[in-house]
Amino acid sequence: MPDTVQPAISPLLAAIRDIVGDRGLLTDPVDTAAYCEDWRRLYQGRTPAVIRPASTQETAAVVRLCAQAGVSIVPQGGNTSMVGGAVPAEDGSQLVLSTARLNRVRDLDTIDLTMTVESGVTLKAAQLAATEAGCLLPLSISSEGSAQIGGVLAANAGGNNTVRYGNARDLVLGLEVVLADGSIWNGLRRLRKDNTGYCLRQLFVGSEGTLGIITAAVLKLAPRPRETAVAFCAVPTPEAALDLFTRFQAHDAAAISAFELMSGLGTAFVLKHIEGTTLPLQQASPFYVLVELATPRTDAGLDDAMELILEDALGDGAITDAAIAESEAQRAAIWRLREEHSEAQKREGASVKNDVSVPVSKVPEFISRATEACERLMPGIRAVPFGHMGDGNIHFNLEQPQDADPHWFLAQDHAIMDTVNEVVRVLDGSFSAEHGIGRLKPYMMPDWRGGAELAMMQQIKAALDPRGILNPGKVLPSLATQHPSLRGA
Amino acid sequence: MPDTVQPAISPLLAAIRDIVGDRGLLTDPVDTAAYCEDWRRLYQGRTPAVIRPASTQETAAVVRLCAQAGVSIVPQGGNTSMVGGAVPAEDGSQLVLSTARLNRVRDLDTIDLTMTVESGVTLKAAQLAATEAGCLLPLSISSEGSAQIGGVLAANAGGNNTVRYGNARDLVLGLEVVLADGSIWNGLRRLRKDNTGYCLRQLFVGSEGTLGIITAAVLKLAPRPRETAVAFCAVPTPEAALDLFTRFQAHDAAAISAFELMSGLGTAFVLKHIEGTTLPLQQASPFYVLVELATPRTDAGLDDAMELILEDALGDGAITDAAIAESEAQRAAIWRLREEHSEAQKREGASVKNDVSVPVSKVPEFISRATEACERLMPGIRAVPFGHMGDGNIHFNLEQPQDADPHWFLAQDHAIMDTVNEVVRVLDGSFSAEHGIGRLKPYMMPDWRGGAELAMMQQIKAALDPRGILNPGKVLPSLATQHPSLRGA
Repeated sequence: MPDTVQPAISPLLAAIRDIVGDRGLLTDPVDTAAYCEDWRRLYQGRTPAVIRPASTQETAAVVRLCAQAGVSIVPQGGNTSMVGGAVPAEDGSQLVLSTARLNRVRDLDTIDLTMTVESGVTLKAAQLAATEAGCLLPLSISSEGSAQIGGVLAANAGGNNTVRYGNARDLVLGLEVVLADGSIWNGLRRLRKDNTGYCLRQLFVGSEGTLGIITAAVLKLAPRPRETAVAFCAVPTPEAALDLFTRFQAHDAAAISAFELMSGLGTAFVLKHIEGTTLPLQQASPFYVLVELATPRTDAGLDDAMELILEDALGDGAITDAAIAESEAQRAAIWRLREEHSEAQKREGASVKNDVSVPVSKVPEFISRATEACERLMPGIRAVPFGHMGDGNIHFNLEQPQDADPHWFLAQDHAIMDTVNEVVRVLDGSFSAEHGIGRLKPYMMPDWRGGAELAMMQQIKAALDPRGILNPGKVLPSLATQHPSLRGA
Repeated sequence: MPDTVQPAISPLLAAIRDIVGDRGLLTDPVDTAAYCEDWRRLYQGRTPAVIRPASTQETAAVVRLCAQAGVSIVPQGGNTSMVGGAVPAEDGSQLVLSTARLNRVRDLDTIDLTMTVESGVTLKAAQLAATEAGCLLPLSISSEGSAQIGGVLAANAGGNNTVRYGNARDLVLGLEVVLADGSIWNGLRRLRKDNTGYCLRQLFVGSEGTLGIITAAVLKLAPRPRETAVAFCAVPTPEAALDLFTRFQAHDAAAISAFELMSGLGTAFVLKHIEGTTLPLQQASPFYVLVELATPRTDAGLDDAMELILEDALGDGAITDAAIAESEAQRAAIWRLREEHSEAQKREGASVKNDVSVPVSKVPEFISRATEACERLMPGIRAVPFGHMGDGNIHFNLEQPQDADPHWFLAQDHAIMDTVNEVVRVLDGSFSAEHGIGRLKPYMMPDWRGGAELAMMQQIKAALDPRGILNPGKVLPSLATQHPSLRGA
C-alpha cells in the first residue's frame, strides 16, 4: 500500500479489499489519479483508494464499513460532471466509489417500454440496448459515451431532447439505492402508477450522490421515431425564434424533439474553427434555430408539415431563410453546427460559461438584457448564447474581447457570472439549469435557494445521511466549502 | 362557541379567529359536519373547528399558532379522497384546515404553457381556465368538479389521460407550501430545467398533506387537441386488449390519450342499470376497450389511422368488432359506458374495490390469476375489472355473488383484498395505484414498503414535521392506526 494512505485508514481498506477483491480496489496513485480530477480540470483532489464494487451487495457492504468508520465516500460514474460533482477533496480523507463495474442491463421490456440498468452502464450503451430492441432511450447529452446512468440520474441530466421527453428525472420509474448506513432500498418497480407513500426516487435523482448511491434504475423508453425532419433556420432575433417555437408548438408539441438556438457569432466561430462545416444558407444571420421533428408514425407527413410551417414563418418574417435536410448526411451536418459550439468557442479564446434557464417566454428578454449588461461591464466582450430554447435553457457563454489577455479575462469570471445571474434572477430563472451544483456552486445556494428551501434540504440530508459521509462538500453549502476560481474550459 | 370545543383549545381558536376572521372559522357542528366525513362514508371524525384561510399568509400564520400549541391539522381540499385522506380523527383533537378560499388562478402563460393556481381552485375550474386560454390542463378524474388542486396534487391523482400525460406529479413545475413550522416555501418556479439542489416539490406531491400544506402550484399545460378519434372495441381476452394497445403504441404512443379496459360483465351491469346506455356493437363480448386518440395537429389523419389499425387488428383477431364514434354525441355515449361502471356496480349489489397496478405487460396474467383466486375463495363471486390498461392500473372490483347477503359479503372484504393483493405482489405490482394510502391503508405499508423504504419515509416525516402535527394517522403507520372495516361504496 503506497505511502499516501493514512495509517488510520489501512484496516478499513483491508476490510474493503476482503469484500471487493484486488480488482475492486485501487490504491496506487497512478491508478487513482484519473478519479481525482474532473474533466474540466477545475479540481485536483486526492484519495487513499478507489473502490470498484461489482454488485449492489458489495456496494452496500463497503458503505456499511465506511459508515462504521465514519469515512466519507465520493460516488463516481463517468466523471463527466460540469461542476466537479464527483471529485474527492484535496485533503485525501475521502474514498472514491466507482460504479463502473455495475454495468449490466438487467431487463428490457418492449411492451412496458422500460429497461432496468445498473448505474455503471454508460448512457451510450443503454441507448444502444434500447435501439437494438427497437425502442428509444430518449436522453442525449454530449458526454453520453462516458457518462454512466448512475451519474446521469444523480445529476438529473438534460440535453437536446428535453423539450420532448423531459429531463432524466422524467424517465425514472424505479431505483435501487444503497443508503448512507449501507442498507439497500429496492425500489426497482416498473409501474406507471404507484401511490404508496412518499416519492423517494425523485429525491435521489438530482441529489448528486449526497443522499445515497444509485446502483440500478428502471427507465422509461419511447417508441423509436420512424420519421424525422430537421431544418436550419435563419432568424433575425431571439423574439423571432420564440415566435417560430410557438408555431411548432401549436402544430404538435409532441413532435418537437429539439429546438436549439444559436447566435450568429457563435456559429461563425464554428465555421471558422471547425473543419468541414459550412453554412447551409446563402447569407449569415444574427441568430439561427435548429428544429427537429420526430414521430414513430410513418404516415405523419412530417416533411410536408415542416415545409408548411416554415413557409408561413417566412411569409410572416419570423424566419428569413431555411434549409430542410434532405439526407442523413445533411442532418448530421446541421447538427454539427450546433454540437461544435463549445469546441469552437474554446479555439476562439477564453470563455466564461453560464448554464442558466428562464421561463421559455422570457428567453428573448434574457438574451438582450444579459448581453447589454455584459457589454456594459466589459466593452468588447462577445456574448455567444446557444442551447435549448424550447426548455428556456440557454448556455449564455461569454467570449473574451479580441486581443484581450485570456488570463486577465478569466480573472473577471465572477463579475461576469454575477452580471448574467442578476438578469436571471429578475426573470425568475435558475443559475444552474442542467449542470447542477457539485463543488462549484454550493456557495450560491444560500443566496438563491435560502430560507425554508435550503433548510428543508439540510433537514433531509441530516435525516438520510446523519454522519454526512456521502459526497460531503457537494450541493449543500458548508463552512468548508471553498469558492473556486473558474476556468474557461 | 359550542360545547363540543374543548376548553383548552379555545384560546388557540380565538387567536386563529384574529387571523382568519369570522368567515374563516367554523365551529358550529352543523357547519363542520360535512368536513368530518369522507364521501365514501368510511370515516366519521370530529373536529373543534374548520379553518378557512383566505391567503397563503393566513395559512402560514394559522399553522404557526397550531405548531406552537402542538395541535394537529388535517388539510382538506374537496374532500374527495377514496381512502379517508382528509378526515379528522374521532377524538376531536384535530383541526381541519380547508383550502377552499385559496381559489385564484394567479397566472396563465400560453407560450410557456404553464398556469399558476392556488390550491383551492377546483380541478374543473382550472381545466376551464386552461381551455378558455386555448390550452389543455391534461388531468381528468371523476371527482374533478369538487376535487381541489391542492388535494389533487397531495394525492398525486391519476385518471384517464395518464397514459399520455402522466400523473398529477408529472404536471408540476413548482409549488408554494406552508411547512409544519408555519414557514412558507415559495417554490413557484415555472422552469423546465432547474438543477439547484434536491427536488422538493415531488416530495410534497403524493404526501397527502403529511409534510406540508400546498397553497399554490405551477402546472404544465398542453396544446389543446384539435383532432380526436374514439373507438369502442370488442376484444375476446385481456391478452387481445394488450395486443391492441401495442399496435396503437407502435403507431404513435403520443397520440393515445386513453386506453380503457372493461369486462363484459361490468359493461352488462351498465347496460342493465344505467338508463339511456346502449352497446354500440352487434354482439356482447367478454371484454371491451375504449381507445381515444388525440393531437393538436389538424392534418394528422387520426380517423384514417384509427380505421387502419382497427382493420388490421380485426384481420388478426385482436378485436372481433369495433365502433368508431362519428359525432360528439357518439363519443359521449361511448365514454359513458366506461364512466358509469362504478355506479352500475353499486346498483347491482355490494362490491369490494381494489385499485391496483402491475406492469402493463402483466395485466392479462393479473386479471386471469386474480379472477381464479377470488372464485376459489368464494364461489359465485363476480370479478368486474376495468380501468386504465395503458398504465397497468386496473380497478379490480369484486361484485357479490347473486342472491348473497350484502352484509355477509362485505364482512369478507379483507379476505378478498388479500387474495387480490397476493397476485399483485407476485407480479411486482402496487396495492394502491392512484387512490393513495390515507387512513385506509397505512396498516399495509410495513408489509409492502417496509424496511429501508418505510424507514426513509419516517425519517423524512420526522425531519420536516418533527412534532407530527400535519395530518397524523395518514400514509405512515403508527400504533394509533386503526384497521377499519371497508364498505362497498
